[in-house]
Amino acid sequence: MAKRIVIALGGNALGNTPYEQLQLVTETAKPIVDLIAQGNEVVIAHGNGPQVGMINLGMATAAEAKAIKSDMPFPECGAMSQGYIGYHLQNAIGNELAERGMVREVATVVTQVLVDENDPAFKNPTKPVGAFYDKETADRIAAEKGYTMVEDAGRGYRQVVPSPKPIDVIEKNTVNALIKEGCVVITVGGGGIPVVRRNGKLYGTPAVIDKDFASAKLAELVHADALVILTAVDRVCINWGKPNQESLAEMTVEQAEKYCEEGHFAPGSMLPKVKAAISFAKAGGTAIIASLENAGAAVRGESGTVVHL
Amino acid sequence: MAKRIVIALGGNALGNTPYEQLQLVTETAKPIVDLIAQGNEVVIAHGNGPQVGMINLGMATAAEAKAIKSDMPFPECGAMSQGYIGYHLQNAIGNELAERGMVREVATVVTQVLVDENDPAFKNPTKPVGAFYDKETADRIAAEKGYTMVEDAGRGYRQVVPSPKPIDVIEKNTVNALIKEGCVVITVGGGGIPVVRRNGKLYGTPAVIDKDFASAKLAELVHADALVILTAVDRVCINWGKPNQESLAEMTVEQAEKYCEEGHFAPGSMLPKVKAAISFAKAGGTAIIASLENAGAAVRGESGTVVHL
Repeated sequence: MAKRIVIALGGNALGNTPYEQLQLVTETAKPIVDLIAQGNEVVIAHGNGPQVGMINLGMATAAEAKAIKSDMPFPECGAMSQGYIGYHLQNAIGNELAERGMVREVATVVTQVLVDENDPAFKNPTKPVGAFYDKETADRIAAEKGYTMVEDAGRGYRQVVPSPKPIDVIEKNTVNALIKEGCVVITVGGGGIPVVRRNGKLYGTPAVIDKDFASAKLAELVHADALVILTAVDRVCINWGKPNQESLAEMTVEQAEKYCEEGHFAPGSMLPKVKAAISFAKAGGTAIIASLENAGAAVRGESGTVVHL
Repeated sequence: MAKRIVIALGGNALGNTPYEQLQLVTETAKPIVDLIAQGNEVVIAHGNGPQVGMINLGMATAAEAKAIKSDMPFPECGAMSQGYIGYHLQNAIGNELAERGMVREVATVVTQVLVDENDPAFKNPTKPVGAFYDKETADRIAAEKGYTMVEDAGRGYRQVVPSPKPIDVIEKNTVNALIKEGCVVITVGGGGIPVVRRNGKLYGTPAVIDKDFASAKLAELVHADALVILTAVDRVCINWGKPNQESLAEMTVEQAEKYCEEGHFAPGSMLPKVKAAISFAKAGGTAIIASLENAGAAVRGESGTVVHL
């Protein structure tokens, strides 16, 4: 039965250079087009960790070397990564559709995601981004730009940004309109460009929105039947790497919350995926954590880990 | 009377740094929202000359310094510039709408534009882009990447790319669907990401599509009533800078073609604007060349230079 599916694709699965990415997206496109061929409405969200890191570092390096006139603030780097990754994905999905003789529009929507200025994350920025600097340069940049700079593992000083929770997807009506038109939509790239609202206006803010949380919020806002969070493994495991390791075909929200508390899942890796899945399941949808290769099987209930109420 | 209007915004009007751009787009948004407030459907195309130059140069500088693992090919730089500029425009237009209590979706669509591999421009690349290199480095890059590198005005060697004509806007149906939904659409940024079609598939190609030609093609494909090409002056002039300088309220296509032949318009500046206007007028639309400040007046026939059949 046809479903509306939000796929959350990991930034790590997209490689580390444009040449790698261009190659990898041709593979990524295949299981995605399989889902489309089965009659599903597909919306694609994606991470941008390595990509926004490369862009931010590249522009910062060139700015410090005075090769270009200015650094590139972090929200703008995120916007650039949405164009860069979105282009490759829409191109590859379009080509895979053409290969199969399927006609479907594919569009990347540059997407802002609202966060709350009072989110406690803003008091405790934790995500290091961009270039390493010596203390003097870091202090100068901190003074010039108002960035928070911290010493990072003996390798120098880096900007750190907060990771607040997504509240709303600003372009959700655009995404909904395109889904209704039968379009394959690529959105909330890198978790979205983080914006705060002040006096009714939106302002970009340096932050990283977890792409799995943003995908769950998106899935809720577009009334998706399923949120498929892709990862490197076929199923979520508890007791990972231990003799009693167990892969799970399903978890209730209650079980999943208990596993999270018990520390079964690695922070920054499986933990946000499970938490995002919980959040979407609580909103009434079916959340599945699965591998890209088995995304189609997971939607049919034959692979992946389903998280449900 | 309400009209469907494509506005072609110059990249030079957007400043040279993200900080300048963020400031300038708040001004750009005002006459655009004036047009929306008058009931018009507005689609925005924009240039990216300074922006894609900065991105390409920044990433190339960082790659040569081995700060990042790879350079960024030119089509990908264009995609990045669409995200970067599109985000600022959609944010500023959204904020201006909010300021006036208007509710309207604003969306940037990452846009590929088809060019013909047999376009004579590919045999004669003329647009220098990105960093300057010494001969040795230029030769190495040319060998590694297959780029065409030429000596540029005694300042070193640079990549040159061709400037082929736009044939089609790949995401035109998406743009049309969004216009119908009442959305303000930002598209064909920088003239679009240039792609060629081989065996039914699209491949990015290093090239610069003139944004005025791309805007004219877009205006034709979305059946716009008017194409408004913005420039720094209120009206097109003939005999520019001479005692007999004359500003024109209108030109027929025939007159405009004669003025082009007579060399009244600067190549790379007013000439492509007039040629793009001619092309859209020939397709049956009304083309207007005007200043941003007087865009609203120009649409009402009170400013700008109209080019018509």
